[in-house]
Parts: sequence; C-alpha cells; structure tokens
Amino acid sequence: MSKTVSPLAPKSFPALSPIDGVRIATAEAGIGYRGRTDVLYVAMDQGAAAAGVFTRSKCTSAPVDWCRANLPGGTARAVVVNSGNANAFTGARGREAVELTARIAAEAAGCEPAQVFIASTGVIGEPLDATKFEGVLAACDAHATPHGWMDAARAIMTTDTFPKLATRTVDFGGVPVTINGIAKGAGMIAPDMATMLSFVFTDAPIAAPALQAMLDAGVRTSFNCVTVDGDTSTSDTLMLFATGAAAMMGARFVASADDERVASFRAALVSLLEELAELVARDGEGARKIVTIRVTGGVNDASAHRIAMSIANSPLVKTAIAGEDANWGRIVAAVGKAGEPADRDRLAISFGGIRVASEGARDPSYDEAEVSAYMRNEAIDIAVDIGLGQGAARVWTCDLTKAYVEINGDYRS
Amino acid sequence: MSKTVSPLAPKSFPALSPIDGVRIATAEAGIGYRGRTDVLYVAMDQGAAAAGVFTRSKCTSAPVDWCRANLPGGTARAVVVNSGNANAFTGARGREAVELTARIAAEAAGCEPAQVFIASTGVIGEPLDATKFEGVLAACDAHATPHGWMDAARAIMTTDTFPKLATRTVDFGGVPVTINGIAKGAGMIAPDMATMLSFVFTDAPIAAPALQAMLDAGVRTSFNCVTVDGDTSTSDTLMLFATGAAAMMGARFVASADDERVASFRAALVSLLEELAELVARDGEGARKIVTIRVTGGVNDASAHRIAMSIANSPLVKTAIAGEDANWGRIVAAVGKAGEPADRDRLAISFGGIRVASEGARDPSYDEAEVSAYMRNEAIDIAVDIGLGQGAARVWTCDLTKAYVEINGDYRS
Repeated sequence: MSKTVSPLAPKSFPALSPIDGVRIATAEAGIGYRGRTDVLYVAMDQGAAAAGVFTRSKCTSAPVDWCRANLPGGTARAVVVNSGNANAFTGARGREAVELTARIAAEAAGCEPAQVFIASTGVIGEPLDATKFEGVLAACDAHATPHGWMDAARAIMTTDTFPKLATRTVDFGGVPVTINGIAKGAGMIAPDMATMLSFVFTDAPIAAPALQAMLDAGVRTSFNCVTVDGDTSTSDTLMLFATGAAAMMGARFVASADDERVASFRAALVSLLEELAELVARDGEGARKIVTIRVTGGVNDASAHRIAMSIANSPLVKTAIAGEDANWGRIVAAVGKAGEPADRDRLAISFGGIRVASEGARDPSYDEAEVSAYMRNEAIDIAVDIGLGQGAARVWTCDLTKAYVEINGDYRS
Repeated sequence: MSKTVSPLAPKSFPALSPIDGVRIATAEAGIGYRGRTDVLYVAMDQGAAAAGVFTRSKCTSAPVDWCRANLPGGTARAVVVNSGNANAFTGARGREAVELTARIAAEAAGCEPAQVFIASTGVIGEPLDATKFEGVLAACDAHATPHGWMDAARAIMTTDTFPKLATRTVDFGGVPVTINGIAKGAGMIAPDMATMLSFVFTDAPIAAPALQAMLDAGVRTSFNCVTVDGDTSTSDTLMLFATGAAAMMGARFVASADDERVASFRAALVSLLEELAELVARDGEGARKIVTIRVTGGVNDASAHRIAMSIANSPLVKTAIAGEDANWGRIVAAVGKAGEPADRDRLAISFGGIRVASEGARDPSYDEAEVSAYMRNEAIDIAVDIGLGQGAARVWTCDLTKAYVEINGDYRS
C-alpha cells in the first residue's frame, strides 16, 4: 500500500451497495504490516454458490490448493483474505496454516471448514502464523455489516496504490440484482507481494456450475488479458459468490449458464471483470501509462491473444512507451517472436488510430511529429493487424519505468 | 557503441591470429553513424564452406532471408555486415537493398552474388540505402588483410560497450587449426538496434553439412542459452565459415560431423561459442551483474531449458538481483509459470552454492546475512533443482537495472 497514488488511478471510486446475504469486516491481525488492516472477513450466513479460477502456476500457494480442493463442494459460508504474507512455498507448515485458518473461521461463522475460502497475499516463503487469526475472526463475525466494501478493498492491498472496486446492477428476470467486485495487486506483477486477487459477490440466485461456466468465460477477456511483467503469480485467485438472496424478491433460480435469463447478468459480469482487470493494469508497479493492445487478423482468437501478450510483455515495447516513443520496430519484433502465424509483409500497426506501418513497411503517410504528440497521452492504444484471418484479442498493460526497477529491486531488502 | 564500458567487460581481449584464406577490411559508409566504422567486409578468396543458424522470428530481416536462401549453395566468398540499420521490416525495398549489396560485393570479390552473405544491424523499419556500399566494398577488397579482427568486432557494434572476440587452436589430425569468432549485441536485448550477430571462421577443412551439424548442436548450449530481455530479434545471425586452408598443411578433409577426427574441433567450437555467448550477456544493456542459471532435475533437457529461461526472463528475478536481494520466492514463481512439469514440494534453490530452499520451503539452515553478502558479487550463480528427472540446462542473463529502462526509453527519440 504505497503512499504515492498512481497517476492512472480513477478520479473517483464507485459506491457499492450492500448485497443481501453478504456481511463484511476487516481487522488488523499483524500478519505482515503495522498500523493498517490486513484481514478481510466475509460472512455469507445463508451460504452462497461459489465459483473460482486460480493461477496456472505449478508452484501454487497453500490457500490456492485449499480453495481448489473445496470448490467442488460448491457452497461458501465465509471468505478470509490476509495481506502481508502469501503463504506460498511454505511446505507442510503452509498447509497446516491454511487448515488452522479455516478451523478458526468456521468456528466464527458456525460452518464447516470446507465452506471457508481463503486467500493470502504478500511475501513468498515466509511461514504464516495462523494463530494470529484466533479471536480476530470471531470479532470480525460479531461486527460484520453489509457495508464496508471500500474497507474490504483496502485490507487486501499490498503494493497497490489505490483500492479497486466495481459494481453493476442488472435486471434478472424482472428483479434487479447487484454484482460487486473487489480486486488487488497487479496480476502477474508481483509474485513476491503476491498476486492478483479478486472477489465478486452477487445476490442473484444462480447455481454454482452456472456461475463457474460464466466465470471461466469471463476471465478470458478480463484478467487473463492483463499483464504487467509476465510474471504469473503463485496465488492468483478470482472467486464469484452468489447468495441467491434476490430469490426472496421474486428472482427465479437459474441452474444453467445456457439459460437465456442470465444473458444480461453474464454481460454485466464480464463488463465488471474487465473493469477490475483494467484497474489492475492501471496500478502496475511504476506505471505512468495504461496501454491497450488490440490485435486483429490473427488466424484465430487464441493466436491473436498470444501475439498481443507477446507485445504486452516485451520490455522493449514497454520501455519505448515509457519514453513516449512510437517504436513500431519493437512491435514488429514482438509479433515475430510470438511463435504464432504472422506474415511480415501483411502487418499493419497503428498508435491511437494513426497508422505507422502497413504491408510490412513504414506507412507512406507516416508523420513522426503526429505520432510523437499522441505518445504523450496517459492512455495509449496500439492496434496491430496480422492480416491472416479473423482472430482478435485485446489486452491491457502498462509502461516499464525506472520506478518498476526501483520498487522491485528494493522491495525485500 | 557506448562510451561507458560495461563493468562486466573482460579485463583484456584475446589476440586473434590470422586464418589462412580470410582477409578483413572495415570502412565508414555512413549508413547510420558518423565518425566510426559501420561496415565489415570479409573476403574468402578460395571460397569457404558455410553454415548458419538464424532467428526463429516470423518477422525476419531481409538479410536473414537472403542468407537462408543462399546457404544451401554451401560456398561463401564474401561477408558484408553493416551496423546502423537493420534492413528489417522494409518490405520490397529491403529485398532490393540486399540484392544490390550482394551485387556490389560480388563485383568487388569477383564471385557470384549468391556467394555473398549479408547481415545488417541497427534501427528497424528505416530503408537501407545500399548505394552507399558502391566503391566502398571494392576499396575494402583492395585493402583487406589477414589481420584486423579487433577492427572487425568494432565495426559491427551498436549499443555494445565492448567488442566481443574469442579464439581457439585445436589439433586436427596432427595439424593445428584455428577458430576465430566475433559477436555483437546482446542477443534478444535490442531488436531496435537489432540483434545478435556472430561470425566464426576456421581454416579447418570441413564440409558444409558437417559444419552445419556442429553449428546446430553448438548453438543449443551457447547462444540459445543467452537472454537479456526475452526479446528475440528479427535478425539474429550466427555463421561459421571454413576455408579449409589447413589442408595445405596436411590436414585431411572431413566430410561428416560424425567423423571422430573432429571431436576436438567440435569441443573447441562449442567452447568458443559459449565464450562469445557469455560475452553477449555481459554486455546486456544496463547490466551490472552477470547471472548464470543452472537447472537440474527437469524431466528432460528441453524442459530444464524452458524453466531456466523462464527464470532468466523474469523481470522480478532480474530486478531483485539488481537490488542484491536473494529473492528465491520470485524464482519459485518463475519455475511455476514456466508451464513445465515441476513439483513445488521437491524444489531446491541455491545462490552461489548456498542452499536457501529445499523440499518446497525455506531451507532450515537459511542464513540471510550469508546470502546477502554473496549477492554483492558481480557474478551470480543460481542453481535450481526440480527433483523430477535428469534434465539439465545452463543459461546466462544479466540483471535488470534502471539503466536498461533509460537506454531503451531514450534510444530512438
């Protein structure tokens, strides 16, 4: 939680309404920080259908293993998130710490440990002392209220410079339902401080398998399209909980993601996830510019996505953007190294709609002054057309600045 | 060609002996710089067997396309390398520029254009005016001498801070033969200034297919194991030329790489390529530390290599090393994201032989002061054991410093 707020932070934060069936509390447990909250406790007293997607890392954190193992149960009663320690690469002690956390939370919430979902973010490799949750989580349950979304977003921050929240209200078969989401971190930016975490809650009455299907689809165009440094973390966690409380208002239960009644819910969910994902990129360590890369003309969407990520992860592209240089030669190189079908002589590249390269060479109309002026903007749009097919992708990233090196060279020491 | 020499530069440069059948000249053609040489011309008057390996980029430079097309001919008479312009992403004009260069060189050398091999390094996307070679290459041929290897290494530098040369003498069936090599750039560091180039020459009498087989094998443990920023260039070129002049001293011609008489030649070649590759990593942009990463225990060598490259390309690992922080948590994350088989609970990690992690957790003997002292060294060795099989790999990289961001944010503008 930096004192200097990113210049890319939103000018204001949305006000999140309560969601029936969700109560929130935060606390200072002294896990890894002093003088700030480091625990988020969420109670869902009537239970909630749960869905989740997690890091593809082969070196997952203990909390990720726990959530994966318990997700098939499909029901959540409590969520515990701590900042200050990732409980990753902590061996048998890490597993024990998660189990103890779940037991303490289950006692506080009056549920089974398997109904508690847990996430941890912070330094990797330090043992997490879960006894610090004793008393704390019971007090949280006693004080939890339907309000406090901003506090929730703040409690899970590590090197984040601003809290990340988003909300949507959507018509659900005649009944308005709410979707609230919070996120922290900057995705793959900072495994050490570990990770992108995001939690989304709704009162819509939707079954867990349907939630999971929508979340799996939604993550593809949102969080999976964010990169700050290509460093996938050990702990990335995105979970979606549906309390179903809107059923009391007359909303009918939906069992399948194919049900046409969830079309607008699905669209709102994807839109919310994309908003949170962009906020994560906007808080990329050291970022001064938010960059949107759109690739069209790939042989298919997956190929376009890999090309877009190759551009977004190129240190040379990212340093050029930091230097306000429309260096499309580096984009060509990044396309070339992606390992995907591409034909140099069909490539076209634009910055902010200004075409700089076409048919494999500098565009005849290229005007360096015009492009240079555009590069001074805070938000940079890059469009690359591969010219081979209909595949398309959009990803977000940020520039690579000296501040990134400073933050990550100095973090632990 | 920076004025500030990398602190990782070798303390002295080797003296390269002449190679029978190779004559060298350099010149100022005004391609992209002023007040320095930017053309290397190599004449091999009796011809030489040629082998080459090139970038895997899908957006190759025009000179790479030219070399690939002419390599099956197997015979080289001249090599032309310019710095200051990569002639990459230059479309039809780029092809024409290469053809004109080859014609001018062929006239100077008295050979066919297809016997001329060409490489260009510098900015991408700017048209190369090959008419600047007119007169220049003929003068080069007139003045070329068997000496001048240091001048050759200097003429092909771009952002390099020191010239890169290596030499070996090896017994070839009772006759001593020489292998001389030069390289420039820092591999995948800088596509904009474009590329890693390396040229190796020998007087050993070896047929082109045998040379090619040895070069293909040799590149796997040398240049393919160097990364500065993961940005594979459009123009990477490594070529090996054998004049066969040692046959006049009694060396017997070798047609096959399987011939046991080339065993010591092969070993010397690999050793020379590895030396040049490490020099490239030592001149990584902004580098202050040279990092050697050894991965053992992978399911096979290819898997170990991909894990080693994932570590070597992680901005978080590289910034931590710049900050002299033995941040093994970031190494765990880099192993996990590599997409290769790995078992968190079998991982072991050492810095400079000091074990910091074992069996998926911090090593019981971990002593932060000891490791921190080690991290102040200029050369950092990292060893990672995956614990699954016999696969091994070694790669070189450098740290990621603010100077890298500065160099690449300011380069073009």
